[in-house]
Amino acid sequence: MTGTSRTATTFAPPIMAAKRWLDGVDFPADRPLINVSQAAPAEPPPEALRQVIAEAALNQPSAHLYGPVFGLPALREEVAGQWSRAYGGEIDAAQVAITSGCNQAFCATITALCNEGDEVLLPIPWYFNHKMWLDMSGVTAVPLPTGPELLPDPDEAEARLTNKTRAIVLVTPNNPGGVEYPADLVESFYRLAQARGLKLIVDETYRDFDPRPGPAHELFTHADWPDTLIQLYSFSKAYRLTGHRVGAMVAHTGLLAEVEKFLDTVTICPNQLGQIAALWGMRNLGQWLAGERAEILDRRAAIHDNMPKITPQGWRLLGCGAYFAYLQHPFDIPSDELAPLLVREAGILLLPATMFYPEGDPRGRRELRVAFANVDRAAIGVFFDRLAGLGLPLAPTGDSA
Amino acid sequence: MTGTSRTATTFAPPIMAAKRWLDGVDFPADRPLINVSQAAPAEPPPEALRQVIAEAALNQPSAHLYGPVFGLPALREEVAGQWSRAYGGEIDAAQVAITSGCNQAFCATITALCNEGDEVLLPIPWYFNHKMWLDMSGVTAVPLPTGPELLPDPDEAEARLTNKTRAIVLVTPNNPGGVEYPADLVESFYRLAQARGLKLIVDETYRDFDPRPGPAHELFTHADWPDTLIQLYSFSKAYRLTGHRVGAMVAHTGLLAEVEKFLDTVTICPNQLGQIAALWGMRNLGQWLAGERAEILDRRAAIHDNMPKITPQGWRLLGCGAYFAYLQHPFDIPSDELAPLLVREAGILLLPATMFYPEGDPRGRRELRVAFANVDRAAIGVFFDRLAGLGLPLAPTGDSA
Repeated sequence: MTGTSRTATTFAPPIMAAKRWLDGVDFPADRPLINVSQAAPAEPPPEALRQVIAEAALNQPSAHLYGPVFGLPALREEVAGQWSRAYGGEIDAAQVAITSGCNQAFCATITALCNEGDEVLLPIPWYFNHKMWLDMSGVTAVPLPTGPELLPDPDEAEARLTNKTRAIVLVTPNNPGGVEYPADLVESFYRLAQARGLKLIVDETYRDFDPRPGPAHELFTHADWPDTLIQLYSFSKAYRLTGHRVGAMVAHTGLLAEVEKFLDTVTICPNQLGQIAALWGMRNLGQWLAGERAEILDRRAAIHDNMPKITPQGWRLLGCGAYFAYLQHPFDIPSDELAPLLVREAGILLLPATMFYPEGDPRGRRELRVAFANVDRAAIGVFFDRLAGLGLPLAPTGDSA
Repeated sequence: MTGTSRTATTFAPPIMAAKRWLDGVDFPADRPLINVSQAAPAEPPPEALRQVIAEAALNQPSAHLYGPVFGLPALREEVAGQWSRAYGGEIDAAQVAITSGCNQAFCATITALCNEGDEVLLPIPWYFNHKMWLDMSGVTAVPLPTGPELLPDPDEAEARLTNKTRAIVLVTPNNPGGVEYPADLVESFYRLAQARGLKLIVDETYRDFDPRPGPAHELFTHADWPDTLIQLYSFSKAYRLTGHRVGAMVAHTGLLAEVEKFLDTVTICPNQLGQIAALWGMRNLGQWLAGERAEILDRRAAIHDNMPKITPQGWRLLGCGAYFAYLQHPFDIPSDELAPLLVREAGILLLPATMFYPEGDPRGRRELRVAFANVDRAAIGVFFDRLAGLGLPLAPTGDSA
């Protein structure tokens, strides 16, 4: 009914579309649904954090009132302080904005950088909400192909720059691919963006689950990082706050003045209780978060441990990290037909990579995203057993796209 | 630094700009600041509601996890049920979407209806965030002049329709003007929109403080309302939940399928605790809300009671309702210079109507918005005393715009 609107230029939300595949399907008690479609902790935050929220709701009047557009000053300072130490750079609280989730940080950034007809480079497979916002903004998402290890190539990026390009987006650790981009690769993209007067948007939603011991990149060590870098973050995964909608972005104060227009107009301010929770989490849950990270890394190891169950049928693990295992399936069925079939045949809900590629891309038909962080090691074992038991027609030899 | 971006096409957030006028100004204890700039309850919600939030935070795991894009089904049903009864029409839960505040409902609606270069009619004075989102969306806000009683005229609207017009926006009770639009006027706009295949967007953020005993309009009694009407609502004012960011919209399910793309991409879902609070408020705070309404109506009466203090100097009350008194000032100073002067000279923070009109409009220079709901009857008296005591140059006779 709205054929010419901005939303009409993009596709339906993948997570909600996938949930609709569950309609009318029964999952017997001895074979319950394994839902690995959405990157979402299945458990609430620890009790101490829940008590902090409850206490604020009861006794802190400001928790119920409008706050600053950019969020609680104390939370902005905490991010600035922790980031400065973690990345070995100088980040000021004035360069931090708190947002209603990390998706909103991306939307605000694009709206502050781009206008109709501009271009932004997105490595493929891409995060679908990034593609959706670019579509709705009238900005062309220029697909940047990745190699067999799902890493984008700065030279390939450079070849795609035009006078309409405004930014390059990197998601590391990557959603949906699960790979961590090496620090020197991220640095190369930074230098490219800097040399061409572009912005480098680095979405580090999954930074807390990076297995590498040191900082994931050295971008913040450049004194002039604000001229080029925009970093996005989510409190949802680290502190199990998905239902609270709190994210952050770090950028030049001049850009934030533009971002403020978007945030004020779309949500006025981030919700207060979620910010109070995020702040307390940052200050008090460092040790707990280390345990969370160890658990996620063990689930990641469980993916590797279980792969031998399905490699004989031709499955391949293309990437494994952040919250995701990224698989190539061996069947003679496109992934967007395979995924709903897996609901019925295997009691598994996951996302087909058709959602992460431009329409018609052959890789999208062969790949699947598994949000393994949602399920424990035992369920991961069952997940692989079910995949191993599938009796589906294999793709012709050589069709490994 | 981003001269060509979408945000660069619009102005800085008025509330935050106004707050900056406070920088460096001292407010002595015997003359504290009277802040009537933002429509925001100054008190937290009642204790019973705060306990419900606290209880959910502690014991309801789903309160911390992602929920549906459109919000909690029970809240959607509650809105549908209460609205059906209040407006005497049929509204289904599937026609209700919960949003992260009412501003977001407007943004989602425009994005689902419009594309670059489209036009939307906004009566002036307008709600600044509406104008800002239209700017950022590449949609032309066509100003619809209002008469001396701040009411828009359907004939004037019709004269401004083009083949690019997509919607007409009404805010009633009005922000910033404070007037309630008569039901037959709203009906006339509905018939105009219907006849021309447009959408009528009715923002009823302040509906709970309408002094009229019955429904404010009969739009929902039309069986085919979903083809024309989009209604927006906020839980912020009724239940004092401004810091929780919860709003709603009621529309055709086909339009909501488009809206879902926006909501999913920008915030994924509304925050859960705010929704739990809104639902409990709707179910349990009817009596309390009646008292709130009575209090707001008394403050409104206090505005009328105090006007004689300043009418001798040439002040005029143009509108008074919702949360707002809308004043014409008598001074030979444009409102955007008068407002920061009032901070320093009178300890009053309010918004100049230059923020509510297209640039250069002469009415904007003479008018001011007072968010009276923020302050009690006593403070309203002091507010008027301070205005009465201003020694500023009066405008030349006849300059009453």
